[in-house]
Amino acid sequence: MAGWKTRRAWLRRMADNIPAGLDTPLAVAKYETAAFFTNGQKADVRLDRELKDSYEITQTANGYAVRGGETGVLYGAYALLRACAAGEAIPSGLQKPYYDLRMINCWDSMDGTVERGYAGRSMWFEGSRFDYDPARIRQLGRMLGSVGINVFCINNVNVRQPAQHLLDDLLPDAAVFAALLRPFGVRLMLSIDFSQPMQNGLPTADPLDERVQAWWADTAKRVWAAIPDLAGFLVKADSEHRPGPNTYGRTHAEGANMLARAIAPFGGKLVWRAFVYNCMQDWRDQTTDRPRAAYDLYKPLDGTFDSNVILQVKHGPYDFQVREPLSPLLLGMEKTPMAIEFQLAQEYTGHQIDLYYMGGLWRETFDQMGKERVAAIAAVSNLGRDENWTGHPFAAANLFAYGLFAWNPDSDPEAALRQWAKLTYTLPEDQNGRLVDMLLQSRSVYENYTATLGLCWMVQPNGHYGPSPYGYEFQAWGTYNRADRNAVGIDRTINGTGYVEQYPEPLRSLYADPQTCPDNLLLFFHRLPYGFVMKDGRTLIQRIYDDHFLGYDQAKAMADALAGLDLPSPDREEAARRMEAQLQNAREWRDVTNTFFHRLSGAEDEKGRKIYD
Amino acid sequence: MAGWKTRRAWLRRMADNIPAGLDTPLAVAKYETAAFFTNGQKADVRLDRELKDSYEITQTANGYAVRGGETGVLYGAYALLRACAAGEAIPSGLQKPYYDLRMINCWDSMDGTVERGYAGRSMWFEGSRFDYDPARIRQLGRMLGSVGINVFCINNVNVRQPAQHLLDDLLPDAAVFAALLRPFGVRLMLSIDFSQPMQNGLPTADPLDERVQAWWADTAKRVWAAIPDLAGFLVKADSEHRPGPNTYGRTHAEGANMLARAIAPFGGKLVWRAFVYNCMQDWRDQTTDRPRAAYDLYKPLDGTFDSNVILQVKHGPYDFQVREPLSPLLLGMEKTPMAIEFQLAQEYTGHQIDLYYMGGLWRETFDQMGKERVAAIAAVSNLGRDENWTGHPFAAANLFAYGLFAWNPDSDPEAALRQWAKLTYTLPEDQNGRLVDMLLQSRSVYENYTATLGLCWMVQPNGHYGPSPYGYEFQAWGTYNRADRNAVGIDRTINGTGYVEQYPEPLRSLYADPQTCPDNLLLFFHRLPYGFVMKDGRTLIQRIYDDHFLGYDQAKAMADALAGLDLPSPDREEAARRMEAQLQNAREWRDVTNTFFHRLSGAEDEKGRKIYD
Repeated sequence: MAGWKTRRAWLRRMADNIPAGLDTPLAVAKYETAAFFTNGQKADVRLDRELKDSYEITQTANGYAVRGGETGVLYGAYALLRACAAGEAIPSGLQKPYYDLRMINCWDSMDGTVERGYAGRSMWFEGSRFDYDPARIRQLGRMLGSVGINVFCINNVNVRQPAQHLLDDLLPDAAVFAALLRPFGVRLMLSIDFSQPMQNGLPTADPLDERVQAWWADTAKRVWAAIPDLAGFLVKADSEHRPGPNTYGRTHAEGANMLARAIAPFGGKLVWRAFVYNCMQDWRDQTTDRPRAAYDLYKPLDGTFDSNVILQVKHGPYDFQVREPLSPLLLGMEKTPMAIEFQLAQEYTGHQIDLYYMGGLWRETFDQMGKERVAAIAAVSNLGRDENWTGHPFAAANLFAYGLFAWNPDSDPEAALRQWAKLTYTLPEDQNGRLVDMLLQSRSVYENYTATLGLCWMVQPNGHYGPSPYGYEFQAWGTYNRADRNAVGIDRTINGTGYVEQYPEPLRSLYADPQTCPDNLLLFFHRLPYGFVMKDGRTLIQRIYDDHFLGYDQAKAMADALAGLDLPSPDREEAARRMEAQLQNAREWRDVTNTFFHRLSGAEDEKGRKIYD
Repeated sequence: MAGWKTRRAWLRRMADNIPAGLDTPLAVAKYETAAFFTNGQKADVRLDRELKDSYEITQTANGYAVRGGETGVLYGAYALLRACAAGEAIPSGLQKPYYDLRMINCWDSMDGTVERGYAGRSMWFEGSRFDYDPARIRQLGRMLGSVGINVFCINNVNVRQPAQHLLDDLLPDAAVFAALLRPFGVRLMLSIDFSQPMQNGLPTADPLDERVQAWWADTAKRVWAAIPDLAGFLVKADSEHRPGPNTYGRTHAEGANMLARAIAPFGGKLVWRAFVYNCMQDWRDQTTDRPRAAYDLYKPLDGTFDSNVILQVKHGPYDFQVREPLSPLLLGMEKTPMAIEFQLAQEYTGHQIDLYYMGGLWRETFDQMGKERVAAIAAVSNLGRDENWTGHPFAAANLFAYGLFAWNPDSDPEAALRQWAKLTYTLPEDQNGRLVDMLLQSRSVYENYTATLGLCWMVQPNGHYGPSPYGYEFQAWGTYNRADRNAVGIDRTINGTGYVEQYPEPLRSLYADPQTCPDNLLLFFHRLPYGFVMKDGRTLIQRIYDDHFLGYDQAKAMADALAGLDLPSPDREEAARRMEAQLQNAREWRDVTNTFFHRLSGAEDEKGRKIYD
């Protein structure tokens, strides 16, 4: 348990630890700055409540002045320390976060497991109760606060017993936990179970039932009495066998609004996940199309949600696949506050074994969508009890950069990465550059060997690591590639499922035509024969082969680059060990996928490379 | 827990229960016969120790006389009662079991789960200890004894902690359990962990190390002191990540003999499973062929095993697939006593949801092999804590018939089934016949929709229920169909992996030629194009389509037949519920497999039936 103390991710250049007893962001800011400047410089941290989350840093004769609001002082202090430690320019002028809610969703279950967790067991749940080292939770709060994350939902959106008791028996423990994070500007959020009234004696959880409404109002009162700054409730309803308002013939607006009204008096936000689809689909049915589901369900409800409801929408229409188009719901809702949801946990992107830096995804997403389309931002946590916090030491870069993007969606992926690397290691400048370059390209490399042309879901069922081209093909999850001997992909144009019609122009026309559709989404939107000629003159099948060979070769090059970095132990050995596994995985993906399409198409590789039979 | 008392499987027409305190087979035989004959008849049961397992039944003025050995009296009594209850002729002349060891292997783990169990949790393990109702274990012993099963291995061959303690801390509990079964002629057997000496302080488990030998000798002494009639040890070594002699560069003969010598002084048998293969195979490698593994490993060791070693060989070279040829090892070993192993647990044969009566498999196996090729017989249990013992009430027919075949491998599958049905239900004669007919054809129906032409392993990974044509295709288990757009199957002739060379003539030539190879093994031995013309003039692909359509239609006919049976509750509802699931499964198998081969081959169904895209 104690090993984490020496593995402080990007806080490596700051104070070893944070003492107990610092009970406000101001106190933390003062402590951190005092501990940081050992060269005679000093930072003068001043509270200006008006500024709230914002801050301004100015230079003084012997150091810096940080002026900020109640949490702004903290963000200012950390921004200053990050810049100084990384040798970068101090941010000038008033700094203000773009999103008020910068959320992390933890899928930690009370049995101690983390759903889709790749960094060990839960840091705070074990054996159906809270179980943690308070010093580590303070360190966690410090990590989060240092990059501006301010909402932390601690329990799995799939709320299973006894997590329901976070609202009653376990509420005092939750309040103690909340107090540990509060000095770092981090507010707790709780995932709730829509059917919970029925587990507390009511015969129904119908949102229009007055007893249900009264039960939630009463519960909210108790909960906020215990945790006055609780950020809100997070709800996964009517999805993947979770209960929800549909059970009672009610709309999601009726369900969400009922909860929103219960918590409104306390300033709580009701975050409602839009991840709802038919998870009992029949693969024989070619008309039902899972990517259509969220838009079809929620677009007609636009304008009917209460003002403290936030609809949390995954960035793509499926489920965190390596390559998806932007969810059309994010472009379609006009009157409903939305949060965009990303997944730091590398469920489909390499399990924190394979390298996969997500900054590029966020850059592309905000560039395409426009940051103003959403009111908040959320990401599924990649944290766990592992000593190095995130399983792969480099996976911490995603959490770090996520904080920067949540604060400022105009952030630059490379700059974020560079700062993370500087704060995390003390590599020579050229090596630091190589580390940054390696991670910057990691996403494209992973895409090349796992999901070229927008092919997705060709993963091992359940685990989602490694290839299985038909693994999800005949299942009930709506996840098909429909590859046969002639063609592959799903026609989502007006001639097919019509999904593309959910997009506004010009995207609609762009995607609808295989001649204009971006290559990396070609098979997401179109069903094409293997002989289809791509923009660069290659056939579709040749492109599939090429990308898989390329992806593996690129992974090998990354392994070489990694070997040339003088990382400290044990990060060096840990990263090397995982890279070996990544190479094995990349080889499997290359060979299995190429063999699969070779078996189907019969097409030979033009370059005569080895494709197994 | 008490529900089982009214669900006594085929003992339904005998006494309700067996009282505690009957401590010998003779006492049980006397009690059972006295309780059975309520019409003034009586059975005179007499012990003749010379007869051991054997018995003779004669008619007397007012009933019957049963003369038998210590266990023979029990078998005689039950044979008499079974015949009388079923309205059949009494066996005449001296009756003697063909195999001395008629074994059941239970894969019960001490955490209460049953590996590949489909009838609920373990009947005797829970929470890392023994946990059972003694009355139910007596009833279990009675079921086993009533069909002549005489060895019962109670713990999983994958021996995980704390099952190692069955040899020390838990030994007294095992002895108590053994005592419950002893009056029914059933002797306990224990699965052991080859590496156990290392868990008890030794630095090695090398079978040639004298300390290891001494440890096992000492352990055997203690174990047999506690359970003097323990039948022996069962060992899975060097298989699927289990430890074994190969770890120390020793042969399996050296490993087995070391253990055999430790237990020989006590009359124990060392049952050594021959289920050893490379479970980390590379799918790219077309020369390694898993079905070759057992023969390649064990044939060279023939003649080197001690006389109290029994090599336990699965009936087929793979792993209880729906259709496999006879294991060539069973035909190849000349000097080594072998047990043939079957699997009553329906791992690959429908999970005790789908109907699958195994009598036909046993008949075919013994007819082809010759019963004298093996010295003993074993089967993996299909029992569990479910009230009806076997999950599906009809699955009990497999356990019942197994006992009859173990006693007499010349048994008739239909006669065994008929007796089971008569003992289990009181259906009118025509309905009894329909039940028997339905179960008799169940195996062929299941084969039609899941595994025609010897195709195997096209199951969902891990669970092994339902179709996934490529689910095991790119895995490490050596389980491939290598289907592509032109052909399917593996060439196991001399031109391919050479597996067929492990068979003696005339089988070798029969299997080697696709013109003479039985249809049901065609794709097991050969790789053939979809246009290959079968003996009946149909193409291979048409036969695949036809069998899958036929299998589903046959399953529907079975459902109709089932609906016409006046079974008692709750068997009626339970069987109906499972039949509904079977139909769903059969439909999935039909459509997924047909679609898979249609996508690959592009061939249309000649009869124009619906094949989904």
